[in-house]
Amino acid sequence: MTRDTSFNPDLALDLLHELRNLTADEHGAQRVAWTSTWRKARGWFADQLSDLPVETHRDSAGNVWVTLHGRSDKTLILGSHLDSVPNGGWLDGALGVLGAFAVFRHYATASVPPPITLRLVDWADEEGARFGRSLFGSSAFAGTYSIEADRVRTDKAGITLEAALRENGVDVTNIATAANERANARAYLELHIEQGPVLESMGIPLGAVLGTKGVERHSVTFHGQEAHSGSTPMKQRRDALAAAAKLALEIRNIAGQHPDAVCTMGSLKTYPGIVTAVVGRAEATLDQRDLDSGILAQMFREAQEASYRFAKEEGCTVEWSRIWSIEPVPFHPHLIELCEEAILQTAGKSHRLPSGPLHDAAEVARLGIPTTMLFVQSLGGISHNSIEDTTETDLRLAIQAFQLLVEKTIDWILSLPD
Amino acid sequence: MTRDTSFNPDLALDLLHELRNLTADEHGAQRVAWTSTWRKARGWFADQLSDLPVETHRDSAGNVWVTLHGRSDKTLILGSHLDSVPNGGWLDGALGVLGAFAVFRHYATASVPPPITLRLVDWADEEGARFGRSLFGSSAFAGTYSIEADRVRTDKAGITLEAALRENGVDVTNIATAANERANARAYLELHIEQGPVLESMGIPLGAVLGTKGVERHSVTFHGQEAHSGSTPMKQRRDALAAAAKLALEIRNIAGQHPDAVCTMGSLKTYPGIVTAVVGRAEATLDQRDLDSGILAQMFREAQEASYRFAKEEGCTVEWSRIWSIEPVPFHPHLIELCEEAILQTAGKSHRLPSGPLHDAAEVARLGIPTTMLFVQSLGGISHNSIEDTTETDLRLAIQAFQLLVEKTIDWILSLPD
Repeated sequence: MTRDTSFNPDLALDLLHELRNLTADEHGAQRVAWTSTWRKARGWFADQLSDLPVETHRDSAGNVWVTLHGRSDKTLILGSHLDSVPNGGWLDGALGVLGAFAVFRHYATASVPPPITLRLVDWADEEGARFGRSLFGSSAFAGTYSIEADRVRTDKAGITLEAALRENGVDVTNIATAANERANARAYLELHIEQGPVLESMGIPLGAVLGTKGVERHSVTFHGQEAHSGSTPMKQRRDALAAAAKLALEIRNIAGQHPDAVCTMGSLKTYPGIVTAVVGRAEATLDQRDLDSGILAQMFREAQEASYRFAKEEGCTVEWSRIWSIEPVPFHPHLIELCEEAILQTAGKSHRLPSGPLHDAAEVARLGIPTTMLFVQSLGGISHNSIEDTTETDLRLAIQAFQLLVEKTIDWILSLPD
Repeated sequence: MTRDTSFNPDLALDLLHELRNLTADEHGAQRVAWTSTWRKARGWFADQLSDLPVETHRDSAGNVWVTLHGRSDKTLILGSHLDSVPNGGWLDGALGVLGAFAVFRHYATASVPPPITLRLVDWADEEGARFGRSLFGSSAFAGTYSIEADRVRTDKAGITLEAALRENGVDVTNIATAANERANARAYLELHIEQGPVLESMGIPLGAVLGTKGVERHSVTFHGQEAHSGSTPMKQRRDALAAAAKLALEIRNIAGQHPDAVCTMGSLKTYPGIVTAVVGRAEATLDQRDLDSGILAQMFREAQEASYRFAKEEGCTVEWSRIWSIEPVPFHPHLIELCEEAILQTAGKSHRLPSGPLHDAAEVARLGIPTTMLFVQSLGGISHNSIEDTTETDLRLAIQAFQLLVEKTIDWILSLPD
């Protein structure tokens, strides 16, 4: 199959604007999963499919699947999510669904069926904004769900996730059967905004995604000695804040040894936290990420060792407690190459980068289904905010490159042994 | 006058234990000013005076004055405070009042009146524990009161200071007349626990106090850029916590250039303060103290300059806002010498030290009345806590040395031209 030059990305842009008008208010997008605005967005999306020769259904976890049968059962899945955070942006997730839809529609309206089956998935509750459980639908698909933990989650109003799911026709005890949708899947592709500043700072519109970084997330508490700020000489202090401050600075050296690693102290709380007392206890959070599990483990070890050293220097003790962690999920090397080719042919330059944020694509990739993502520049690196934006020029390039990536991936799937 | 070897400090210790039994619960001393427990302590103290040839009255600010007329109107004032913080210690303030009382009683029961007039003052509300206004009574005496600001202060229950004063028979509009008590005052002496670890760490029981340190107290806020902890490369961050952490460490170098200076970051708050975001705003408090106003001003300037440098290094901005400040109050050089002599004669060794915490003595000294204080070791440097303690051996030494200081000060006052 050669490059199809008749594809026009403007349909996706028109739909993105239409969706924004329908589901955003002056504070931003309000397509929070399991709410009426999200259902409105999904109803509007179903209307876009009405004239196409496709089969549409919702699986047991609330994911919407649209299937265009091809000449082979071998299946390429394109996906992303229509749900947003409250006061969110117009592109996060929506670009992936509507960009994929433009490509999908291109095949669905062709004179002949595609050589393989194409499916478009709108994952349910990628953001986890209402109940704090992100990647809900894709984790059900991947079999990494956590029903017992999830059913008792509540939103701010005290409504349980289980009740909200029921209101949306989803039975939490039954979500595992979403795994049935894996049948015949040969590859998964997702288009998304970067949500970070890397591509913008390099002046490159599009990037091929290497995978999602693993995360080590801990709370780190230093215990010193509360003391009077006026009567306690500097040399007789056991200042928990001093130990924490040393760690806040040292994690930058630890991350700095690796090109894509990040370490963040996002929260630091001081106790008693009054102007007239030396800090007796300092509670920090530490978030460390890298695409390489060896680097991630090394950074975690180095941060722990540094914290012990700083505690000793300051006459303090330190405790660590794991909040959460996830392994890195590398994407498929050949699909990354195809993605880069598609980008180079479209935009003339490309960059390979890992994703710091998690995505549904990570759940699919963990299953062993060959996966990659295509990122488009985010202005100012900002997302989860009403000012999230990308130039229309870059959006057009992104959708065009994604179409080319789909073509190349179809060819690759056809080339694989059965 | 030669040294009176008949003085016995045990009376003061007995009274300290009696007061503790009367006004402490399992959480510590509860003699919070303007409360019924404080009034009970004052009533009990009045009972101790009943058999002495003294005149007692309360001034317009609630300070209690006990006067033993001598052969001259020239007056030496001994004082401290019976009020405590909630869950406080048994010695903070009470040692000063009851130690002075033991000395006072010694003169009041002698066969002849003292050569000059002696007065004992129990200052009202030194701690400011209930309404946040410390040194209430002594500031009225010194004319540094702040009636308009004070009258609308409220406690946790919403009761105004003005109403609490009225309940205690004090009219807030009239407190300035407490200045009448200054008449004929030639010197002021106060015995107090150190409330810090300096004397204990030197193995010295008693110290002569050089004055109270000046304080510069500021809030320092760094503004950076909130950013996603996963998608924002280390080099593209504007991390407000990093700038604040640098300042938390640099203030130790700034204080370290001066033997008695202290700089404390007692509180640090991070915003948004979540594990997945680079800190966009870090709000710190800074408390700087020294006895030398030039050193204090230099340290303030150095901390400001350091904060600007760190803000620039981290791509942040910084704002300073003064919370409160007070000038250093040096005590009287000759009285400090007499205090040291009294200590050396009693304990064999002495140390001169500034006071980090403020004391009523600072208000008196600011008026120009020659003043000093005598400190006794605090075990573990701890005060404002039920475990606050000093060995009985050291308490006896302290009261004995204070008696000797009173003798020496009487002689000195007599030696002064009229």
